[in-house]
Amino acid sequence: MPNDTTDWTAGILDPPTLEWRGDHVAMIDQTLLPGELVILEVRTVEGMAEAIGALRIRGAPAIGVAAAYGVVLGALRSQAAEPDAFRAKMAEVIARLRATRPTAVNLSWALDRMAGVLDRQAGAPPQQAGEALLAEAREVHREDAGLCRRIGKHGDELTPDGARVLTHCNAGRLATGGIGTALGVIYTAHHSGKRVSVYADETRPLLQGARLTAWELSRAGIPVTLLCDNAAGRLMSEGKVDLALVGADRIAANGDVANKIGTYQVAVLCRRHEIPFYVAAPFSTLDLSLPDGGTIPIEKRGAEEIVEICGRRLAPPGIDVFSPAFDVTPANLVTAIITDRGVCRPPYGESLSRLAVSG
Amino acid sequence: MPNDTTDWTAGILDPPTLEWRGDHVAMIDQTLLPGELVILEVRTVEGMAEAIGALRIRGAPAIGVAAAYGVVLGALRSQAAEPDAFRAKMAEVIARLRATRPTAVNLSWALDRMAGVLDRQAGAPPQQAGEALLAEAREVHREDAGLCRRIGKHGDELTPDGARVLTHCNAGRLATGGIGTALGVIYTAHHSGKRVSVYADETRPLLQGARLTAWELSRAGIPVTLLCDNAAGRLMSEGKVDLALVGADRIAANGDVANKIGTYQVAVLCRRHEIPFYVAAPFSTLDLSLPDGGTIPIEKRGAEEIVEICGRRLAPPGIDVFSPAFDVTPANLVTAIITDRGVCRPPYGESLSRLAVSG
Repeated sequence: MPNDTTDWTAGILDPPTLEWRGDHVAMIDQTLLPGELVILEVRTVEGMAEAIGALRIRGAPAIGVAAAYGVVLGALRSQAAEPDAFRAKMAEVIARLRATRPTAVNLSWALDRMAGVLDRQAGAPPQQAGEALLAEAREVHREDAGLCRRIGKHGDELTPDGARVLTHCNAGRLATGGIGTALGVIYTAHHSGKRVSVYADETRPLLQGARLTAWELSRAGIPVTLLCDNAAGRLMSEGKVDLALVGADRIAANGDVANKIGTYQVAVLCRRHEIPFYVAAPFSTLDLSLPDGGTIPIEKRGAEEIVEICGRRLAPPGIDVFSPAFDVTPANLVTAIITDRGVCRPPYGESLSRLAVSG
Repeated sequence: MPNDTTDWTAGILDPPTLEWRGDHVAMIDQTLLPGELVILEVRTVEGMAEAIGALRIRGAPAIGVAAAYGVVLGALRSQAAEPDAFRAKMAEVIARLRATRPTAVNLSWALDRMAGVLDRQAGAPPQQAGEALLAEAREVHREDAGLCRRIGKHGDELTPDGARVLTHCNAGRLATGGIGTALGVIYTAHHSGKRVSVYADETRPLLQGARLTAWELSRAGIPVTLLCDNAAGRLMSEGKVDLALVGADRIAANGDVANKIGTYQVAVLCRRHEIPFYVAAPFSTLDLSLPDGGTIPIEKRGAEEIVEICGRRLAPPGIDVFSPAFDVTPANLVTAIITDRGVCRPPYGESLSRLAVSG
């Protein structure tokens, strides 16, 4: 992860979204933002699973990094002295972390990498395997920061000076191990001297746009205007949006994109208003095992996230709630997918598999 | 207003959204729903202006009725003994009430009717003019209940048995002097024995869908499922919506419809998913003086309605907010406009003016 103080991203990343501190993980508790900036110390696998499940840390790339560190926590706290017992314990740890959130593929991807380390360390003493796991988790983190930088660079080339960018949810430094995916593009364009401004959908039900995107962009000095999700159409009809830029939790082989609920509507509105709709994500978000978005598992979260705000119930009792956490934007609404390996354009079946080979 | 206890609407309308009680208006304070059902007694013009401005009563038809009663309150509290002084005072009262909310045309329309009574009562003793004002306000209210019934009947004919209806905001009994416009159709279809169910957009920022639509429909025994505004696209993509039905605050001569922010997006999504998009409104919502929706005044409400929920600030300080209270749905996205005089289909320039002549 970048810790060079002359690095232009250092200010953006202070304090870190998450970091390894010798024997535990320190992370910003994102459920308390923007009111309080609290650094949470996570010391156990269960603590990490709780933090991921309760969205104290969220964002597809960030939960991949967090889960990788979670495996290291499991190794550190393991009592197993024998390699076989250690591996069995680690398999449980990985299964526990994998079950926290179903949609983001980065979580599985990072855990698969950790499982690969365990395979390579089969028979090694637990302490040696644990050190290899820590090295791998740090590498996942370091790589993610680098991926964000490359996404930012590729996306910057698509961002005109003066661009007014609509974004949804938070695909920023709080969602990754680096400067973010969609917001990584914004930070990079801003750093390159372009005057960019952002319209942030508040993103119900958990208001990641209002709480997180507005917080991190305003801290970085980037002009940000908040709107309710249902006002994006009006905003576009007033001619105030030049492009839309969102992250992704999983991308199917044909370019269909699973992302935070509401993303699909933004894409539909962009098509109607002839506004480019860009998805920014590390290549690891691509799941070539899925032919299209119809097979991406979509997490349904609890009804209370919708009917209660700040602990106050805002809907009458006894009603049903429709509460998918994600939706799928069909590839034909996506103008381009900005990855660390380059920018993909339709047809995505071809452009994505070309980059897959190049990686 | 309906007060026959054998009337099937009586249960729906208990307690009344608003009613005249001899020397004051009693109304449900809608800002406290669904947690508390509080009947507010409004005794002064300023009290009525506050109630309308603070959305204690809202919905285009309901604020027309409320404003008409507000004029009566002004007449009752007037100290003027002479006709001229009384008229001057009443002109102030009407101007005060007219300034409360800019978008709903029904407010102006009802106040114009009250001003017409004052014109006809020019020279009459204040008490006599006051009685004529009360009679007119009661007539506005009684008529509105009848309009809702007729809208419900016309809309019922468009509603198939088993229909799953998406609605936005609240165009129900809480928004009118009767059973509602969009929800009046639902109540009528339900009463006619059809199995109808409703998906209610929660409708940020003030959550009229979660707080009001869900409340009134569930009290009436109609199945209702709540969703965040940004999930409507996903809901449609899952094939769960048969038609959308919304109210209107103002309709231009060409059929462009101003309604609660977010309505436009619902219409865009309906077009994409080939789902009928219906607008239900009394004919008085039509403003033939406006050729199209581009000239409809759109109220911008305070940023605090978006950045604060239940008094807790959920966005960082110092950011801008885009907060139109309404948007405009172009006529070409509207499948039909259901009025008390019948159902209008495109081209609306013709169909609306035909009904205007018939009225």
